[in-house]
Amino acid sequence: MAGIDLNSDLGESFGAYTIGDDARVIPLITSANVACGFHGGDPVVLRDTIARCIESGVSIGAHPGYPDLQGFGRRPISMSVSDAEAFTAYQVAAVYGMCKAQGARLIHVKLHGALYNRAGADYPLARAICESIIRIDPELILLALSGSEMVRAARDVGMRVAQEAFADRAYEEDGSLVARTKPGAMILDESEAVRRVVEMVRGGTVEAITGKRIPIQADSICVHGDNEHALAFVKRLREALEAASVKLCAFGQTDKSSLINHN
Amino acid sequence: MAGIDLNSDLGESFGAYTIGDDARVIPLITSANVACGFHGGDPVVLRDTIARCIESGVSIGAHPGYPDLQGFGRRPISMSVSDAEAFTAYQVAAVYGMCKAQGARLIHVKLHGALYNRAGADYPLARAICESIIRIDPELILLALSGSEMVRAARDVGMRVAQEAFADRAYEEDGSLVARTKPGAMILDESEAVRRVVEMVRGGTVEAITGKRIPIQADSICVHGDNEHALAFVKRLREALEAASVKLCAFGQTDKSSLINHN
Amino acid sequence: MAGIDLNSDLGESFGAYTIGDDARVIPLITSANVACGFHGGDPVVLRDTIARCIESGVSIGAHPGYPDLQGFGRRPISMSVSDAEAFTAYQVAAVYGMCKAQGARLIHVKLHGALYNRAGADYPLARAICESIIRIDPELILLALSGSEMVRAARDVGMRVAQEAFADRAYEEDGSLVARTKPGAMILDESEAVRRVVEMVRGGTVEAITGKRIPIQADSICVHGDNEHALAFVKRLREALEAASVKLCAFGQTDKSSLINHN
Amino acid sequence: MAGIDLNSDLGESFGAYTIGDDARVIPLITSANVACGFHGGDPVVLRDTIARCIESGVSIGAHPGYPDLQGFGRRPISMSVSDAEAFTAYQVAAVYGMCKAQGARLIHVKLHGALYNRAGADYPLARAICESIIRIDPELILLALSGSEMVRAARDVGMRVAQEAFADRAYEEDGSLVARTKPGAMILDESEAVRRVVEMVRGGTVEAITGKRIPIQADSICVHGDNEHALAFVKRLREALEAASVKLCAFGQTDKSSLINHN
Repeated sequence: MAGIDLNSDLGESFGAYTIGDDARVIPLITSANVACGFHGGDPVVLRDTIARCIESGVSIGAHPGYPDLQGFGRRPISMSVSDAEAFTAYQVAAVYGMCKAQGARLIHVKLHGALYNRAGADYPLARAICESIIRIDPELILLALSGSEMVRAARDVGMRVAQEAFADRAYEEDGSLVARTKPGAMILDESEAVRRVVEMVRGGTVEAITGKRIPIQADSICVHGDNEHALAFVKRLREALEAASVKLCAFGQTDKSSLINHN
Repeated sequence: MAGIDLNSDLGESFGAYTIGDDARVIPLITSANVACGFHGGDPVVLRDTIARCIESGVSIGAHPGYPDLQGFGRRPISMSVSDAEAFTAYQVAAVYGMCKAQGARLIHVKLHGALYNRAGADYPLARAICESIIRIDPELILLALSGSEMVRAARDVGMRVAQEAFADRAYEEDGSLVARTKPGAMILDESEAVRRVVEMVRGGTVEAITGKRIPIQADSICVHGDNEHALAFVKRLREALEAASVKLCAFGQTDKSSLINHN
Repeated sequence: MAGIDLNSDLGESFGAYTIGDDARVIPLITSANVACGFHGGDPVVLRDTIARCIESGVSIGAHPGYPDLQGFGRRPISMSVSDAEAFTAYQVAAVYGMCKAQGARLIHVKLHGALYNRAGADYPLARAICESIIRIDPELILLALSGSEMVRAARDVGMRVAQEAFADRAYEEDGSLVARTKPGAMILDESEAVRRVVEMVRGGTVEAITGKRIPIQADSICVHGDNEHALAFVKRLREALEAASVKLCAFGQTDKSSLINHN
Repeated sequence: MAGIDLNSDLGESFGAYTIGDDARVIPLITSANVACGFHGGDPVVLRDTIARCIESGVSIGAHPGYPDLQGFGRRPISMSVSDAEAFTAYQVAAVYGMCKAQGARLIHVKLHGALYNRAGADYPLARAICESIIRIDPELILLALSGSEMVRAARDVGMRVAQEAFADRAYEEDGSLVARTKPGAMILDESEAVRRVVEMVRGGTVEAITGKRIPIQADSICVHGDNEHALAFVKRLREALEAASVKLCAFGQTDKSSLINHN
């Protein structure tokens, strides 16, 4: 029986500021990417989010981003590789220890926003970050864009890696995401989006924007929980996957070959 | 042969801002209290400070403070016990993991500034913080003001604790520090300060401001490295201790009874 | 014909974080207290909020608070009078100039949260702040708690002052607010709250918690716009005031005697 | 008699963190670019720096930068033109009002670090910023890199502009600065640096890196005060200028034609 993980970005509220609807999305997913206090989140929110994930049996990941609360980690900041590596390691370390403080275990790391985008295309940065993370805990799994430099770097340093795919994004023939600025970049038809995910998970393929069917490795599907519409889509996607006999479970809890470290 | 630890607050620089003379004080001490990025420090400074401590064989501690860079953690901030506990745990977790990322081990935790003062006198806060810390790692040692509520809380939760004393501060008969606002609070004569430390370490006593000799438990002496004068004093203190056959070594590396967890 | 101002705290969103429903509350009020970027708000939000106020013809005030985004300015921070004065002046200055940059004029200043509470009871701080504000622009009006030290300080330095009253709070016989921790501190019955406001505005009196009717100077009523319930109450209050022939207008645009500087 | 302004970046300390030696450089310069609290500085430092400038009769300018204390405003941050304009206007407004609060007048604006570099080459951003600034006060003078897009934008919007030149940088034939990465970019010989400044001021020319003598408009020379060496150079430069009968005075206090707004 095929299995798939559903991951979502969480714990991004800050002080009196609430963002996202964590209480409602957590029961619908299998892995949570928890903000670390730099692009979003704070120590109180982090602690409470970890507690919620424990309660719901959701696998916990750290979601480090640029130190840029005002820009929510979405703005590229010209940090050196060495600085970006230190900021990432710090955030992973904080969530790693906060999980320990609550009797939980940190399972994975997924970069956020502009840092996700940069490290996905910048091998030296990707490699420095992966090396840092496995020194904190060699069991940590990287969750990264399917086919990105992050995936390559993780494999090169012997880090387990799970690849994520998107329900609502179109793909180029080489497996990269179609830039948001290009027509057709977003899959707007929900039925179509659901069908694509089922095909990725069961068939290991997806139809590229050119019409050609390409192979894709999908260990996890990224979903959102920030509004009613998004929550409804996650529910629909879950139903379709279950109807297709796809088991929902955290990638850290499967024995999928892509997660095995062959180094 | 008697032994004593010398501890100093370090790693408090931030970005382009330098504070303290870490490179020169590190070789003179045995334990470093490393800022965690909230009252001072940042991930890059933290990483580099850990590296320097490793190089010099100095024992590493986390030095969490209030989230108040502008006030350098010296201003009381009215946070709830629950919030203060989360902010402290986060900072300890971050340094704990950053040490792991560099192949070192976090040995102790010492609170900073206004948080040190508050937790030293507020048992519920002290207890919440100690409980948090030992969940991160039960081997962590608390470094706290001799005779404070932090010491009591640490013992109550079964946490190892080292007590610090001050060379340049006068003591009341009950072992508490004389408030800085009172005359005679500071020991200005350096020879006198050195003599007092030697007595504390070898004799386990100190002359209180009233003239009465009182018992004091000193596992560590807090020293400063922020200017030429402070550095010269540390050198002089080291010489006097060595002349009195007192061995300088990190409290985490001794088998002193006060550090043993009796619970 | 009697007149009254309705004021509300606005512009407290930050980057990707939205708080309050400014677009809906602005058309219902006559004066906006706009966050300055320290307890909430940021330069982009500030600019956009000023633009909205201009569009709706709402009078603009600065709403400075402690530099504490994480605590939303609600936590007391132990700043010296001199520091608190500099932080307040900076924030007023920023909004003053941003109004100029958009062709508007800053009319008033109302302190926020823990700073509002402290300055309302701490005359030296209140006075330092008032002196600072009138040096920026002697026409600025202070909006402060009726009967507070802020009102006294403003008068002493020759600053115009408008006093605010609350629809949902009980009053002691001396005109101070009943502490939130005491039973009966909040007026929960909306009809009662509306009746009290109409009496304050038309009669200049309010029934204290003891049952005694006391005089109260109400130049402005503080209202909230952060949820549906709050917005509905503001609409109801407006209708009741209009039905009682009370004109709604910004205090800066009336010639009410309490605003005239008699020094 | 020729005249020249000497400008320096100041007021960049933050809380307990000191940077630069403001007390010693202020008496040597004629215009101060005062940090606004985003890349450096804070409200207390700002107030105290304005007070020092007033005492020494130094002309005051605002020195806005990216909101990036950790990076000291030196890292490019991908903000939209609209956001960067709001952040710049906010900072100028804050210093403008803080000057008013102390009985001084803000004379000029000079951008900082990565924002200076970007706006110097990005006309739409330069223009948006200039438009914002003159709406705060149409008398404000822009201090910008000689020949940059900031100078062009300021002229286009009718803003007075002073152009700055550098003693320690080589110039290309087109008047732009030689990139720091190229050999010969820095003028290391102090005597040579002094001679070049005297020629720029008295002759209006400078020898480009190619050897060709080119025209240059220098209304102000940028100097530094962050170490002993820098301070000694400023003293030497002042002596050489005085020996060459060049008067040192703030550009805002001269009637130099380049400052006159011809629009």
